[in-house]
Amino acid sequence: MIGVREAKKIILDNCTTSKTEELPLVRAGGFVLAKPVYSPIDSPPFDQSAMDGYAFSFEHWDKKNELPVNGEVQAGNCLNTILNSNQSVRIFTGAALPAGMDTVVMQEKVSANATSIIIKDEQISKGSNVRPRGSQIRKNEIAAAKNHFLSPASVSFLSGLGIDTVNIYPNPAISIIVTGKELVEPGSKLSDGKIYESNSSGLATALTMLNINPASINIVDDDENKILDAINKQLSSDIILLTGGVSVGDYDFVTTALEKCGATKLFHKVKQKPGKPLYFGKHGHTLIFGLPGNPASALTCFYEYVIDAISSMTKRIYGRKLKLPLAGNYSKKTGLTCFLKGKTSANEVLILHNQESYMMNSFAEADCIIELDEDKEHFVKGDLVPVRLII
Amino acid sequence: MIGVREAKKIILDNCTTSKTEELPLVRAGGFVLAKPVYSPIDSPPFDQSAMDGYAFSFEHWDKKNELPVNGEVQAGNCLNTILNSNQSVRIFTGAALPAGMDTVVMQEKVSANATSIIIKDEQISKGSNVRPRGSQIRKNEIAAAKNHFLSPASVSFLSGLGIDTVNIYPNPAISIIVTGKELVEPGSKLSDGKIYESNSSGLATALTMLNINPASINIVDDDENKILDAINKQLSSDIILLTGGVSVGDYDFVTTALEKCGATKLFHKVKQKPGKPLYFGKHGHTLIFGLPGNPASALTCFYEYVIDAISSMTKRIYGRKLKLPLAGNYSKKTGLTCFLKGKTSANEVLILHNQESYMMNSFAEADCIIELDEDKEHFVKGDLVPVRLII
Repeated sequence: MIGVREAKKIILDNCTTSKTEELPLVRAGGFVLAKPVYSPIDSPPFDQSAMDGYAFSFEHWDKKNELPVNGEVQAGNCLNTILNSNQSVRIFTGAALPAGMDTVVMQEKVSANATSIIIKDEQISKGSNVRPRGSQIRKNEIAAAKNHFLSPASVSFLSGLGIDTVNIYPNPAISIIVTGKELVEPGSKLSDGKIYESNSSGLATALTMLNINPASINIVDDDENKILDAINKQLSSDIILLTGGVSVGDYDFVTTALEKCGATKLFHKVKQKPGKPLYFGKHGHTLIFGLPGNPASALTCFYEYVIDAISSMTKRIYGRKLKLPLAGNYSKKTGLTCFLKGKTSANEVLILHNQESYMMNSFAEADCIIELDEDKEHFVKGDLVPVRLII
Repeated sequence: MIGVREAKKIILDNCTTSKTEELPLVRAGGFVLAKPVYSPIDSPPFDQSAMDGYAFSFEHWDKKNELPVNGEVQAGNCLNTILNSNQSVRIFTGAALPAGMDTVVMQEKVSANATSIIIKDEQISKGSNVRPRGSQIRKNEIAAAKNHFLSPASVSFLSGLGIDTVNIYPNPAISIIVTGKELVEPGSKLSDGKIYESNSSGLATALTMLNINPASINIVDDDENKILDAINKQLSSDIILLTGGVSVGDYDFVTTALEKCGATKLFHKVKQKPGKPLYFGKHGHTLIFGLPGNPASALTCFYEYVIDAISSMTKRIYGRKLKLPLAGNYSKKTGLTCFLKGKTSANEVLILHNQESYMMNSFAEADCIIELDEDKEHFVKGDLVPVRLII
């Protein structure tokens, strides 16, 4: 049985990020650039007024007499007349300065009549209130590097340069296969010995919150042939998530079905609680996770292992990792890493009650998973522990 | 002109959370419950084996002799035979304990032959390896309270209780109206005096990342009638976001159009940089934000004001707010709250270059907005400042 660190390393060593995809920029928010973007223009594309006011040529202004006003430029328009160098023009925020003009005086700092202005701004200097052409970025300069995260501000920035498509790392296609003879669909009646199936909705929701729609969701009986069939149908996916049937009981057919379909086992069982029976394998390019059937174990393994595999493909970071002091004491056995449902407050993290792997009520209150080191037995209030935020 | 705190208060005072919506649970992840959910069942619904092993009656076990094994129960199945109290049954994880049985011994802790077992577990006690009926939750107990955030774990938990629909606070319908004669669609050619339109993609991406698809996006000319017409068409929305035209220039028609359509102005202009011309008003139930036209100002006002209005409707918390020490010194004028593009590191926050309101290149690198207090002029390295995480 391997430890958590080794298991994580094996997963990352088997992830590849070869896929890229061209997307319209307006749909690319939240993705990461797979190719750098260069600016196709100078931005601003012209010397631009930053204020409503009057544009003029600083060096031709005599600082004493009235400046005649000859026409106006609204943002988006151009001046059709040709100005003399000692004239001014009414100008509005965002408008292009006419040729020969280099300075703008704010409208609040002039006295104006119908045909001329007197400038009353002692601090004005050449270039005041003007955003020079190319002062944000010049044509052909890099606007966003490879591996840049496309935040709303990034999308706005690139749109402003005229960009309308980008190359990104796409989401992997992820299939969910839930196994178990005891499972009944929520909303229907529960007969003796059955329980409601909840792993598909938990995992699908977890994926949706990463902006990934599951490629398929299948619920199959504890039957090796049916499981084998379900796996074979999803081998074009990038990732298959199976739940249940990964222990070594008489009815645990997931690992044997995976062997029969030709998957290579990369590890099975990890020194951790919950999630000890975790399986990881590969079939061609498809990564296969055999998650335990207990909903809390399945979701914990999703957060601790699957999410890092997805992250290595999309280059996105999902959920911050912090170190926080424990709010109380806690003891566990050595030899197993413990992943505990926790709740953060301003300056510490609380280990919630009901940590048993079938208990989802505490997980529903949790905002983080706390990792307690394999080799350590006793933890005391104030000990700094790794915490993964999950909401 | 009012201050930031007063502006925020006016917005929150005018937000209502009256709408609720019934959704299938599998689509409700990320929403907040508008009604509490009670468990329709005991969970587990029966005494459930936590292990692969053998179930027996602890008090009828004589602790010496072999226990006869009479049949087996797989998870999801029921035992059809009736057992004597001094018999055992082969049982698997998740299966229901047959009537009269109360304890499970792990298969690793027996010596078994074809028809009987000898228990070799000195620590076993009554109830060992059994998850008692109702030990997670009892029928009719509250499973999730009103205002509970539906995380993936919550969805999994409620599914496991058989819940398939929930009542949530829905996303508001949000319309975007971008104004400006100078705006050209990205991907097309830029003629003299024009710039690429980027507010619609920036705001739409910001909404999408909150899991909200904009109800509509319209780009309109700087023309009062056209703006009025665009506003009138969207008055069934919960929120209208306008950009541009909110200053008092000759071509700023947004505030006059809002007046003509019968909107009540709640404030116009805030003592802040960027975003001084920010307008907020109301028409019937519709909240109307007039955001500045500069992309950086528009997005800053979105994060600082609009997101809190959305949050008050959906009850979700978007983006953590922290207090972090500044990584360097900074000076500003008093009398204006400054919102600056920042970048967090492990223990501090850096004020990025290019804070001018037309500069989106620094915003594209930012992961937070730093708020610098209206009344303070000089900030020094180490000063704790409020930080809003935006990615």
